[in-house]
Amino acid sequence: MSGPPGRHSLDWHQSQLRTPTLPIETHMDTHSPEDLGKLLQASQARITADELPALIAGVAAAPGGDGGMGDPEAWMSMVAGSPSEQLRAHLRAALDEHPRTDAAASGDQSSERLALLRGYLAGRDIDGFIVPLADEHQGEYVSKRARRLAWLTGFTGSAGIAIVLENRAAVFVDGRYTLQAAQQVDEAAFAICPMADVNPADWLADQDIEGRKIGFDPWLHTADGALRMRTACEKAGAAFVPLPHNAIDAVWEDQPPRPLSPVLLHGADFAGRSSAEKRNEIAEEMKKKGENAVVLTAPDSVAWLANIRGGDVPYTPLPLGFGVLRDSGELSLFVDRQKVLPETAAGLERGIDIADYDDFVPALTALGAENAAVRVDPSSAAEAVFETLETAGAHIRRGADPCALPKACKNAAELDGTRRAHVRDGAALTRFLAWLDREALAAGATEMSAAGRLEAFRRENDLIQGLSFPTISGAGPNGAIVHYRVTPETDRKLEAGTLYLVDSGAQYLDGTTDVTRTVALGEPSGEMRDRFTRVLRGHIALARARFPEGTSGSQLDVLARAPLWNAGIDFEHGTGHGVGSYLGVHEGPHRISKLPNRVGLEPGMIVSNEPGYYKTGEYGIRIENLVTVVEAEAVEGSERKTFGFETLTCAPIDRRLIVRPLLDAAELEWLNGYHAWVAEVVSPLVDPETRDWLRQATREI
Amino acid sequence: MSGPPGRHSLDWHQSQLRTPTLPIETHMDTHSPEDLGKLLQASQARITADELPALIAGVAAAPGGDGGMGDPEAWMSMVAGSPSEQLRAHLRAALDEHPRTDAAASGDQSSERLALLRGYLAGRDIDGFIVPLADEHQGEYVSKRARRLAWLTGFTGSAGIAIVLENRAAVFVDGRYTLQAAQQVDEAAFAICPMADVNPADWLADQDIEGRKIGFDPWLHTADGALRMRTACEKAGAAFVPLPHNAIDAVWEDQPPRPLSPVLLHGADFAGRSSAEKRNEIAEEMKKKGENAVVLTAPDSVAWLANIRGGDVPYTPLPLGFGVLRDSGELSLFVDRQKVLPETAAGLERGIDIADYDDFVPALTALGAENAAVRVDPSSAAEAVFETLETAGAHIRRGADPCALPKACKNAAELDGTRRAHVRDGAALTRFLAWLDREALAAGATEMSAAGRLEAFRRENDLIQGLSFPTISGAGPNGAIVHYRVTPETDRKLEAGTLYLVDSGAQYLDGTTDVTRTVALGEPSGEMRDRFTRVLRGHIALARARFPEGTSGSQLDVLARAPLWNAGIDFEHGTGHGVGSYLGVHEGPHRISKLPNRVGLEPGMIVSNEPGYYKTGEYGIRIENLVTVVEAEAVEGSERKTFGFETLTCAPIDRRLIVRPLLDAAELEWLNGYHAWVAEVVSPLVDPETRDWLRQATREI
Repeated sequence: MSGPPGRHSLDWHQSQLRTPTLPIETHMDTHSPEDLGKLLQASQARITADELPALIAGVAAAPGGDGGMGDPEAWMSMVAGSPSEQLRAHLRAALDEHPRTDAAASGDQSSERLALLRGYLAGRDIDGFIVPLADEHQGEYVSKRARRLAWLTGFTGSAGIAIVLENRAAVFVDGRYTLQAAQQVDEAAFAICPMADVNPADWLADQDIEGRKIGFDPWLHTADGALRMRTACEKAGAAFVPLPHNAIDAVWEDQPPRPLSPVLLHGADFAGRSSAEKRNEIAEEMKKKGENAVVLTAPDSVAWLANIRGGDVPYTPLPLGFGVLRDSGELSLFVDRQKVLPETAAGLERGIDIADYDDFVPALTALGAENAAVRVDPSSAAEAVFETLETAGAHIRRGADPCALPKACKNAAELDGTRRAHVRDGAALTRFLAWLDREALAAGATEMSAAGRLEAFRRENDLIQGLSFPTISGAGPNGAIVHYRVTPETDRKLEAGTLYLVDSGAQYLDGTTDVTRTVALGEPSGEMRDRFTRVLRGHIALARARFPEGTSGSQLDVLARAPLWNAGIDFEHGTGHGVGSYLGVHEGPHRISKLPNRVGLEPGMIVSNEPGYYKTGEYGIRIENLVTVVEAEAVEGSERKTFGFETLTCAPIDRRLIVRPLLDAAELEWLNGYHAWVAEVVSPLVDPETRDWLRQATREI
Repeated sequence: MSGPPGRHSLDWHQSQLRTPTLPIETHMDTHSPEDLGKLLQASQARITADELPALIAGVAAAPGGDGGMGDPEAWMSMVAGSPSEQLRAHLRAALDEHPRTDAAASGDQSSERLALLRGYLAGRDIDGFIVPLADEHQGEYVSKRARRLAWLTGFTGSAGIAIVLENRAAVFVDGRYTLQAAQQVDEAAFAICPMADVNPADWLADQDIEGRKIGFDPWLHTADGALRMRTACEKAGAAFVPLPHNAIDAVWEDQPPRPLSPVLLHGADFAGRSSAEKRNEIAEEMKKKGENAVVLTAPDSVAWLANIRGGDVPYTPLPLGFGVLRDSGELSLFVDRQKVLPETAAGLERGIDIADYDDFVPALTALGAENAAVRVDPSSAAEAVFETLETAGAHIRRGADPCALPKACKNAAELDGTRRAHVRDGAALTRFLAWLDREALAAGATEMSAAGRLEAFRRENDLIQGLSFPTISGAGPNGAIVHYRVTPETDRKLEAGTLYLVDSGAQYLDGTTDVTRTVALGEPSGEMRDRFTRVLRGHIALARARFPEGTSGSQLDVLARAPLWNAGIDFEHGTGHGVGSYLGVHEGPHRISKLPNRVGLEPGMIVSNEPGYYKTGEYGIRIENLVTVVEAEAVEGSERKTFGFETLTCAPIDRRLIVRPLLDAAELEWLNGYHAWVAEVVSPLVDPETRDWLRQATREI
């Protein structure tokens, strides 16, 4: 589990935890253009004083704060290789002075903005417009520029879509966001529709829109998604019309530009395989299938394939860009050239060329002109990619993103890295848990202060680049809110007799972590202990599972739920999601879920193991470790290649919440073995006081 | 598990087990037309002497033998309400004299038939033809008329497809049939292609057929299936062309006509709900969706909806027919009128009208003429239905067969019936198992004689209509062949030190059974006992499962496999299939399987629980009970509607094959409880000797 994508400008971390390396400077006398010009020249800058405001605007549109990756001043290298101290001070001030407006509509704003949008549409003979929360890359996190849904409706959740018609408008949100939507959305302007009751396409199909034209931005809908909407429109007798320009962008006056953050090389020590090796492997597969090119639109696929990282969206080290891989193994990267530092460009492997982000469409057209056979993934690539290729004459082969599977199967270097990252991460979490036991209640800790403390411990770790998602820090009843994100308004004190749930993770250069622990504050109730033990039994059943090659996570899901089902309870989220290697904390193609998934688990895949139980208004329980798929030890008489899991996360599980007699011998053996291992690997990394605490926390049960 | 669909004319049961009510008569002097006419008149027959040969041919085209249902002379009521003894004798003789040719090509026949087919196609400017093993209803079993694949290729397995091109032809079979295909198919005429290596559509796409026309019979391909083939043809630059007449039928000289067997009412005591109630429920749903009509092409749906049964295909009490349900709740049945006995017609509920089988296409055209919104299931309805409706102007709504789900959820009367049927069936099986222990080895029993003995015990039961599938009777290594069907050539003696696997079932008016037991003959090896115990643990885990509403069988599948997976072994078949109520022994929409299925298990659904293990060349193990989904007993603190299974099948599980220490307390409790129940319900129905044996066989372990 990890929280919803960041909403940077509202983020409490920004005020609470501004990292010390980003001091706020006062105005300087370098503001005159001439002085600035000299300053830039002296540092052999790559840009002129005239170009600086646009660059600053792009940097301001990148996450920064706790959603940012790495050195918060790394962006300065887009200005100059070694900016002077004086230049740095100027740049710092310029960024700080850049207006950081909150895009989300509030109060009457959404009515005004809606009127603006309708006026724009009416002038173009369009009768409606779809506003998804998506960018051109369809990733989990979007940049500030793409937060059009919040700008229009005020709703800042991580998933949602609005449909605007001439005289009606609706925002569709899922169950976890109905409350938040009611607080944020002006219901005079927008109806709030829970997606569980009606999905947007069905809603659209039921509207009185016969003969109308419903517009959409074909860059913000996948081909599969656009098809669903088109079918709905046709059912209602309406046309679903791609617009040449996004209608929100046309009326959003101070819309942030595309984010600018440096593109960095992901070193061979961490990546484990050269880009050339990856590219050639996929190119071989393409040749066999007669595909001339593959269009890559998922930025994590592009980053993995080229061995690069960036920081354009929160919590994930991704540069936003497209890729086109030829069957020769040559890769064209389409990213804003400013982001590609000279050292990055110099360090890129042979066979990778950089083109500008805006060169992507011409490149698709060129593929069409050569009548190339081009693979594109309709579940992730924008409808516009298909339209452009088709119009230009390409032969489209609908198929899976070829990077998804090899990216998911981590190589030895990535696994070694992730193991090391997990030990450091586990040490930080252990220090936090020890602190929690020792001081939290007495010190009057709250959800926010606790999360801050945990982040501070983590930030002392080597190779840390940032958090991998906004920490979920839920005390008492807030722990029962699965995607809870603490705000000053909801911040609760940690209290005796309650449970505290903390789900957190970090991005390290050598790996991505995501871990949840549930802790008893004071004396837990019998019911809490029963529920916790059931969740633990489910967790252990999955951790101990052995399964033949070809088994999907969907097939294993029940193992984590059966102890809960036996008590007539369950949890309403997936049991496990894939995790990247210093990449997305959520990645496919595998998952462990009630929902069908046909992807077989393969060695090297990392996946979370996170059953839970939530009693609304009282408490929440979740136990989450990351695990990786490994070949199982051979058993005599075995006939199949059999896999199992190796647990990566190392932090104690609260023994005080375990009802020992409910565990069978095998479960006890697993738990004691796990705790012995945690003590062994974490102890050397923590202070003596924490070490003593850890010894107690991991003693045999 | 149950075996492949019957291949009646080769069936060993026909010679071995001809039921005593079907004596073979000698020629009689009633052969002259005048005499016959008088005989018919005297019995107030519904047909003339001229019409008799066609009727006899239709009856001969129905299954009869061990695949037939009910009274083997019930067909005579299609001739007259109460035929005189003399007329009966004549009819008996006439059927007996009717040539029962074996359609399957043998030796050179397939080359000759292939040449005939190609000649016919060439004369119509068609370059290829697809020959599936299917009829117009896409059910599991087909009538003799539809055995075109066997006629052309000689292959008599229960699944397969042939593709004939100008200069190549191939038969595609699945893994269980590669050996059989090699024995039956003339490889000079046909290449044998295992479907696991290449599926027919992919094979077709790879052929050099650019510009060619590949013909197909649109009545023998579902819409979904035709789409796959069409896509493949288009990929290869060929056209996929529906032919107005089936090309095999055009050249198959003595092709049997459509089968004739009486359509009978399925009484309210057994059906539990009136047809009107079922029809009105579905009609309500149709009205909500704005559907004017639903086309029903699956004969089990038609039979369930109209509360009728028949005997047109082996092992299943199905009349072959179509249905059209209107949103008024009115149902038109399209069946051969001859089959509908006057008493059946009189007993049909109001709101059901009978039309002839050949009136179906005009009825579709009429739906088109009124521009009706018509639901059709593309996964089961023939492409021809879609073509006809579309051409005629209907608005097609692709959707699931609306009978599938309510048919699967048995009502109280059906459940009571099936429970009673299972007790009688269990008593027969228990008598067989006792006999097996007592006499089989000493008596030199073989797979065939054992199967015959079991069938004889079953046929003594009340309400039995026939077997529900061909018995799988596998001794030693034959037990490892999952879909084994014994023939005189493969018949093995039962031997000490081996395992014997018997999978069998029957059709009773009050329920359908399907059960597998694996028995140790003499002393089993340690490995056999280990494997058996693992299979049993999987069986028990599934039997004891508790799960929330909405859980599918796919989600539960792993429970049955985990004990095997832990030893690095598995089984290559589904864990459970739906079972009808005096209807198909295999029915959907639910199943328990590795393959994804989204249908939630609901109370009243019957499903098999049949994990297994197969060691090729040595032995096979399977333990199969039917279970029904029930609401689970409430547990304190339960928050969800929770379901579990009630086991229906009652027959002892071989204690000698169980390694007691491998079972935990809960598993032992289940097993002992099950055996106590079996002893309790079966004992009153068996002879004292069997009862003594049963007491031993079910004593506490």
